[in-house]
Amino acid sequence: MKIIHSIQELRQTLRPLRSGTIGFVPTMGYLHRGHQSLMDRARQECDTVVVSVFVNPLQFGPNEDYDRYPRDLERDAAIAEAAGVDYLFAPSVDEMYPSESLTTVTLRQITEPLCGASRPGHFDGVATVVTKLFHIVQPDKAYFGLKDAQQVAVIQQMTEDLNFPVEIVPCPTVREPDGLAMSSRNVYLSPEERQQATVLYRALRAAKEQIEAGTLTRAADVTAFLEKEIRTQPLADIDYVQVLTYPRLEPIDRLKNERIIMAVAVRFGSTRLIDNLILPEEGDR
Amino acid sequence: MKIIHSIQELRQTLRPLRSGTIGFVPTMGYLHRGHQSLMDRARQECDTVVVSVFVNPLQFGPNEDYDRYPRDLERDAAIAEAAGVDYLFAPSVDEMYPSESLTTVTLRQITEPLCGASRPGHFDGVATVVTKLFHIVQPDKAYFGLKDAQQVAVIQQMTEDLNFPVEIVPCPTVREPDGLAMSSRNVYLSPEERQQATVLYRALRAAKEQIEAGTLTRAADVTAFLEKEIRTQPLADIDYVQVLTYPRLEPIDRLKNERIIMAVAVRFGSTRLIDNLILPEEGDR
Repeated sequence: MKIIHSIQELRQTLRPLRSGTIGFVPTMGYLHRGHQSLMDRARQECDTVVVSVFVNPLQFGPNEDYDRYPRDLERDAAIAEAAGVDYLFAPSVDEMYPSESLTTVTLRQITEPLCGASRPGHFDGVATVVTKLFHIVQPDKAYFGLKDAQQVAVIQQMTEDLNFPVEIVPCPTVREPDGLAMSSRNVYLSPEERQQATVLYRALRAAKEQIEAGTLTRAADVTAFLEKEIRTQPLADIDYVQVLTYPRLEPIDRLKNERIIMAVAVRFGSTRLIDNLILPEEGDR
Repeated sequence: MKIIHSIQELRQTLRPLRSGTIGFVPTMGYLHRGHQSLMDRARQECDTVVVSVFVNPLQFGPNEDYDRYPRDLERDAAIAEAAGVDYLFAPSVDEMYPSESLTTVTLRQITEPLCGASRPGHFDGVATVVTKLFHIVQPDKAYFGLKDAQQVAVIQQMTEDLNFPVEIVPCPTVREPDGLAMSSRNVYLSPEERQQATVLYRALRAAKEQIEAGTLTRAADVTAFLEKEIRTQPLADIDYVQVLTYPRLEPIDRLKNERIIMAVAVRFGSTRLIDNLILPEEGDR
């Protein structure tokens, strides 16, 4: 595996490989088994696999964790190499934003609820950097984890709206044995916070059971149920709990046959975690 | 030359041609000698030449001339074929915008003065459709006329900011023998308006002479000079006359060695014409 820091070098390296398929896994690094599942899938499906590691300042708010976001390129390189990745693209901030950029890719509606409401400008930053990375790598397929389900919805919408010649491949959330969704931010958690954070997935699964049993039939009731479950953990500080259609993320009242997402964002101490369940899950029915 | 209406068909057609270079001339049709110079240049420099004809509703304001904008695909096809174009891409509005698009490419600063001020949203529409067309055609080089100098600046800035793998080739304005810049909108002009419209280029050239002679040394004086010249024509109704840096389009006071644009937009009856001179011109000095 080769580590490449320069856009120009990556382009030159990939040029002769374009006769085959190129798979791309954009990440912010500090790779975990969630990322690994994306790399594995890309490795299975594509001739060349490129992983990017870039903590994108554009998608962090002024009071967010950009500075303390965990970074360890050496560790990331070892994990990527073990996963059979061909090229690890790790540009500096100056390489990605050499001069003041005047251009933003924005999406309306789909970016407004959930993390879009809690993190103004976040999805503009995501859409803009993914556009840049797509133009640099020019992949045939790009792999994204469904832990960030709104991000997947935003990227799919953008890809369709702007006719990107890229197939977006959403991949299932990977979890710890106790159900906690894999996240680079999990390293922030104290042992007690880590223990209480398992409530998120437990609450989502319990809500799913109640929906299937027909005891929860309205979005508002599901939300109330989830909030109550999550509040059983004293360290849990709810940012949002919402039930919306998926992938359009529109409000819904009665749960019928429409695809929905139950999405939660909860702080444990200074760490904000997100999780979700999309119903029906793959394999249901 | 083949006329193609479908995005998918164009993609399939171009796929085997990507080993060579693809030149792209995006237009709104009703082709004139200005477009022809772009096609000629593309033909000289590229293995495959694609011209698009698409009157993009996104870049017209609610009270603008979208409906009456001149359209004649048969005529365009004959002109493109004579210029040696390989593929004429003429999608319908439904083909380009099959469902409600939520995504916009926006640029700040550079889109704010000149036509950006007169036509709110215009450059968002341009940037978004050019992004779509670039993703559909995936050209190596794209050709734009400098009559729309702000558009060229916007596209170049966007291409750099978003790392598009496309070289933007700005091409000089083509003029009628009496100096009027070629424009599809010239067909709207009555004979009297057409006659008086020649004042634009005359005024720009006279201003250039005064700048070179050192009699005009400040942007405000150039603007006043141009306005006075243009107002000699009773049918001329000024939208804007401005002198800015080029390509960043920032205000300037004293004219020094910086590159500047003198840009004008003037209505003759219901027809709004634009023209400009960028100094130094190619060939000056």
